[in-house]
Amino acid sequence: MKIKIGIVGYGNVGKSVENEISKFSDIELVAIFTRRNIGEIECNNKKIYNLSDIGKFKGKIDVMVLCLGSANDLVSCAYKIARDFNTVDSYDTHSKIYDYYKQINKINRKSNTVSVISTGWDPGIFSYYRVLSDSILPESNTYTFWGKGVSQGHSEALRRLKGVKKAIQYTIPSKEAIDKVLNGENPVFKTRDKHTRECFVVLEDDNELTRKNIEKQIKNMPNYFSSYDTTVNFISEEEFDKNHNQMPHGGKIITSGKSGNNNNQSMELSLKLESNPEFTASILLSYSRAVFKLYNENKYGSYTVLDIPISYTSKEDVRNLIKNLL
Amino acid sequence: MKIKIGIVGYGNVGKSVENEISKFSDIELVAIFTRRNIGEIECNNKKIYNLSDIGKFKGKIDVMVLCLGSANDLVSCAYKIARDFNTVDSYDTHSKIYDYYKQINKINRKSNTVSVISTGWDPGIFSYYRVLSDSILPESNTYTFWGKGVSQGHSEALRRLKGVKKAIQYTIPSKEAIDKVLNGENPVFKTRDKHTRECFVVLEDDNELTRKNIEKQIKNMPNYFSSYDTTVNFISEEEFDKNHNQMPHGGKIITSGKSGNNNNQSMELSLKLESNPEFTASILLSYSRAVFKLYNENKYGSYTVLDIPISYTSKEDVRNLIKNLL
Repeated sequence: MKIKIGIVGYGNVGKSVENEISKFSDIELVAIFTRRNIGEIECNNKKIYNLSDIGKFKGKIDVMVLCLGSANDLVSCAYKIARDFNTVDSYDTHSKIYDYYKQINKINRKSNTVSVISTGWDPGIFSYYRVLSDSILPESNTYTFWGKGVSQGHSEALRRLKGVKKAIQYTIPSKEAIDKVLNGENPVFKTRDKHTRECFVVLEDDNELTRKNIEKQIKNMPNYFSSYDTTVNFISEEEFDKNHNQMPHGGKIITSGKSGNNNNQSMELSLKLESNPEFTASILLSYSRAVFKLYNENKYGSYTVLDIPISYTSKEDVRNLIKNLL
Repeated sequence: MKIKIGIVGYGNVGKSVENEISKFSDIELVAIFTRRNIGEIECNNKKIYNLSDIGKFKGKIDVMVLCLGSANDLVSCAYKIARDFNTVDSYDTHSKIYDYYKQINKINRKSNTVSVISTGWDPGIFSYYRVLSDSILPESNTYTFWGKGVSQGHSEALRRLKGVKKAIQYTIPSKEAIDKVLNGENPVFKTRDKHTRECFVVLEDDNELTRKNIEKQIKNMPNYFSSYDTTVNFISEEEFDKNHNQMPHGGKIITSGKSGNNNNQSMELSLKLESNPEFTASILLSYSRAVFKLYNENKYGSYTVLDIPISYTSKEDVRNLIKNLL
């Protein structure tokens, strides 16, 4: 019997979950839910419904995979859905996760449901790594580097500028900074030292004056670009559509510590992804297995990746895991 | 209240556990147990006892950290000790772990004790990674590379040769092979392609004829060297003692898969250790926390790293972990 899932939200991540299911032989898709008008959505899947119909699926779906873009939408939606369904999500506002955890836990306990929150790669498997490395190497330093990859937030910030037609931003980690960490130097970095930012911009009306003006606006934009070394490339729409239509990303998390005898010990986890949303989708699907198992063991409540044995993410049983992967 | 541990076995790993405790502020050492004659052991620690006295510590030690070198010694010792104590060990004979798991589980259940078996880096945190990557990226290929580092087994094989006074062997991963994997080529390797072996040998009686003879014996040694490209360096005892007195090691585990949309997705975990036994010791200490927590929750039985939430290895509580490390 396969695990029956529903997808809530049909943006980049929701569509990726729909695609990734083909790789998960123990999981099947029952329905996709959207808040938009169904007639307006490009979707060949006949299983698409309006979110207002979700109640009709009570008892027919094991796990709802929440793929809503905005953090506020996700939280309010999760509170409602967790009354009737188990859920898994990738809520990523680090500073608010503990409050969310407590709130949804109350709903889960009252409703006898299970929610796994804030999974993905960060928070998610990078969090896993942080706890592991902090446990094993006390007093160590852990450094996180992003990229090379597309930052959605920074790309949106570019697109909000008046006169910009299309834009994308790549975050690039500094090789020099990474090498310092790997050499065990335990460096202290300024923001500017760790990453650079590279922008590709298509203008509505491309001319020398507009270029200068937009470049200046970008490089001085607070929070997003002013504290980084930023390069701005103006390109044609044709080139943009051809070479900048993917969402690759990656990251490294490196820990550098010393043993009791003062030997250098270092660990590193890195990701290189041609598709960032598809990787998040894969992690959501793996953790929907954990939701299903916890529910079947009557362990109602809210969980993060830190509370769940890794064997719960696998379709294999413990015997096979010990025999083949331990 | 600190977690009270005992160390069983006083070889490389046992001594490293003794040293690493200084980094674990929530753990204290109560006693070290050895099977050797105490008078013959170099140990400044007043807490050293003969293994036959272990029974006197029942109720006074929360977790026994088993650091016995030989796999057979470890298993028979663990069966006895788990009747009276919780244990953690780094049993690493992959093919026999499941049997060991079942046997010690019976003893734990009968005796109301907890045992965490086969932790360390492989099996251990590499196993963790294998399950995670297998869950997230179905149908992917995972490659393990060792080194650069000292292989104890291969060094011992060198020292068993007649005429060899001292010897050490370094396993070196092939950069070319690693690059192929990182490029997503999903290569199929012969043993020879992934690693080379570099030996440093001090002879009892160093002369040209003996050098030729020993080099030939090494390069043709089945299982250990014959299926690898091996280089043999003859050096003086002085040089050996100066430059080859450490036990560094490292390793990489790389997964290369495809998303449902045929995008390349890759993950990598790597370790670079100046001291291999000290890293194993740190992991054993982290998992002694897990043993202690499981025991206090009355969850008696046998566990591997795959069955334990990562939060159990931390000295922090769930609230702090979610707030600071998720």
